[in-house]
Amino acid sequence: MVSEKMYAWGASPSVIRDLFEYGNKRKAEIGAENVYDFSIGNPSVEPPTKVREVIEELLRDTDGVTLHGYTSGPGDMGVRKSVCDYLNKTYGANLTPNLIYMTCGAAASLTISLRALCEEGDEFLTFAPFFPEYRVFTESVGGRFGAVACDEEFQPDIGELKHKINEHTKGVILNSPNNPSGAVVREERIAELCDLLRECSAKYGHPIVLIADEPYRELVYDDVKVPYLMNYYDDTIICYSYSKSLSLPGERIGYIAVSDKMTSAERVYLAVCGAGRSLGYVCAPSLMQRVIARCQGLTSDVSIYRENRDILTEALRSDGFSVVQPDGAFYLFMKSPEPSAGAFSEKAKEFELLLVPSDSFGVPGYVRISYCVSTDMIRRSLPAFKQLAESYNL
Amino acid sequence: MVSEKMYAWGASPSVIRDLFEYGNKRKAEIGAENVYDFSIGNPSVEPPTKVREVIEELLRDTDGVTLHGYTSGPGDMGVRKSVCDYLNKTYGANLTPNLIYMTCGAAASLTISLRALCEEGDEFLTFAPFFPEYRVFTESVGGRFGAVACDEEFQPDIGELKHKINEHTKGVILNSPNNPSGAVVREERIAELCDLLRECSAKYGHPIVLIADEPYRELVYDDVKVPYLMNYYDDTIICYSYSKSLSLPGERIGYIAVSDKMTSAERVYLAVCGAGRSLGYVCAPSLMQRVIARCQGLTSDVSIYRENRDILTEALRSDGFSVVQPDGAFYLFMKSPEPSAGAFSEKAKEFELLLVPSDSFGVPGYVRISYCVSTDMIRRSLPAFKQLAESYNL
Repeated sequence: MVSEKMYAWGASPSVIRDLFEYGNKRKAEIGAENVYDFSIGNPSVEPPTKVREVIEELLRDTDGVTLHGYTSGPGDMGVRKSVCDYLNKTYGANLTPNLIYMTCGAAASLTISLRALCEEGDEFLTFAPFFPEYRVFTESVGGRFGAVACDEEFQPDIGELKHKINEHTKGVILNSPNNPSGAVVREERIAELCDLLRECSAKYGHPIVLIADEPYRELVYDDVKVPYLMNYYDDTIICYSYSKSLSLPGERIGYIAVSDKMTSAERVYLAVCGAGRSLGYVCAPSLMQRVIARCQGLTSDVSIYRENRDILTEALRSDGFSVVQPDGAFYLFMKSPEPSAGAFSEKAKEFELLLVPSDSFGVPGYVRISYCVSTDMIRRSLPAFKQLAESYNL
Repeated sequence: MVSEKMYAWGASPSVIRDLFEYGNKRKAEIGAENVYDFSIGNPSVEPPTKVREVIEELLRDTDGVTLHGYTSGPGDMGVRKSVCDYLNKTYGANLTPNLIYMTCGAAASLTISLRALCEEGDEFLTFAPFFPEYRVFTESVGGRFGAVACDEEFQPDIGELKHKINEHTKGVILNSPNNPSGAVVREERIAELCDLLRECSAKYGHPIVLIADEPYRELVYDDVKVPYLMNYYDDTIICYSYSKSLSLPGERIGYIAVSDKMTSAERVYLAVCGAGRSLGYVCAPSLMQRVIARCQGLTSDVSIYRENRDILTEALRSDGFSVVQPDGAFYLFMKSPEPSAGAFSEKAKEFELLLVPSDSFGVPGYVRISYCVSTDMIRRSLPAFKQLAESYNL
């Protein structure tokens, strides 16, 4: 009656979603203030005031037919120009609007890019831990999905990549700042990665594309630098979303940028257009296209996330947990004191702490703590973390 | 380097889009007021005032984190409930929110539904003339696409469907009111169609799904009735969009409704969820979900489209063209006075009339005239139509 694969993907919601639903049930039982829900990556900081102001302006100054009308498939030309200008100015990129394709957010950016690139037998690799939907998106376009380990500080293991990369590898997905680890991949590791990709592209006789999934680019702390990958590697596609930087995750607005130095850049861009078309993306939401065009370079108040990170990192370390302080995003990836992340997550529930076990992120023995929550909740949760640590005699 | 199929779909924009681009170029050359552009189905009537009011209310009364936050994948539960209540009240349907899946517009509704249903070797049929993207969406999910003729009044030829339907037919797409013909399929034809589908479902041992693509449902004239298909056939999926009824085509907001009487309805719904997930649709745009929830049953001012239709139909007939008066949507499908629709469309350009040749709609010898334009432009275009008729000695 239906596609078995689609049914399976629909019937098995993610572990994250499961825990989130458990949290909602539990909040109804014992009161929301008594559940410490660290399950979901939903921005907790208000969008910049400017977002609201721009929507109000647009409603006032633009007729409805234009404001809510179709844009061209790749996006309104003025909007693409503003994105392009910002990227060129900020990162010294050399993009034109005809290399920018506006999308319905990061998931669409990725799915469309993978669909544009994937030919029969192609494989896409990423580094573990990784966002679990990467597997779904890759398999959904007919690709094979594979993961390569990171080191203890969640930096990609280039040695292992060298071992795993092969003639079928079409692309490597790099997600920095990373969900779920919060790690920002350091410049020297990027350089090693790009050297290897160049070497393997030559060896296998086809470009291996670097797909940069960058919704957390602006969420970094302590002046950490996030290298702009087009400046390091020619065959780069950037998948971006305003979900996290502007706290607009439900609005589904982002873009794909194809490097001007990419092999057959125009051909790749047209394949992106074809992929978007064939997946049913007629255009990115028109009002939000115009909003982000006028909010280039703005972000929500990142200092709130940094405060959350600092409080949590310090408390967890003093409790005896093993934590690498994340440089970006709003996730902390904490080592489980017992081998099974699932068992640890279950134990944490006894203290009303909702922590996502790491297995679906491609590594065992960790939990993801999303600290995009109120600072107040974090403070209130600290005794529970302490009791959790004590229950393991840390 | 890229998927050949995606490249082909990206590199060959539709005939409609080509003509639209030609129009923009021509307007720059001779002035917009001198080009009569009937190429595009972009609503020309303002959204109801309520749309703007609701957006302003929501901005005022809802915090940004909630308003612009993720909803659940199938849509906000309150929104799904309001859609469901409206459908139950208006059409005597018996839906629950767990059969409603909010989408990014009609193209997403269709692509997701086809993806949910399509297994290897499956075929989907529709009636010609049809919206050209049906072919792309069907082939994109791995299905085979086929078309069945309509009669002279653009009513489906059930006899031919009976001849073409076979054991591989998984679904039939019905688009009424129709793009490009503007025809509304009459109730007795619907009844015949449903009888045949029941008969064939039994014969081939699997349900043949009726996929109703209904973005134009509310755009009908002279009290014409658009039968609600769930009331006629159990295995029905409704694909809806608010693009045309509320003049919000760029905002990408619609829904899929799975009939409660459908075979394995819950399973089908979960496959829809899985298809949406795998195509990268995280959720439908959150602000617009809330907007349409408060605008159920409203439409843009349909009387403007009716006036356009009446002026055009009368003038074209008096010029000697052969026109079936459309009952709905905002398209008029006019017979070409010469066999080649392409040649006729080229000839029309000489009089600055942009009419879409019918071949990509699956039938030769017609042009589509989109009358979602200003009434003023229609009046000004009439001398050009007259000259065009005269050039054929009509």
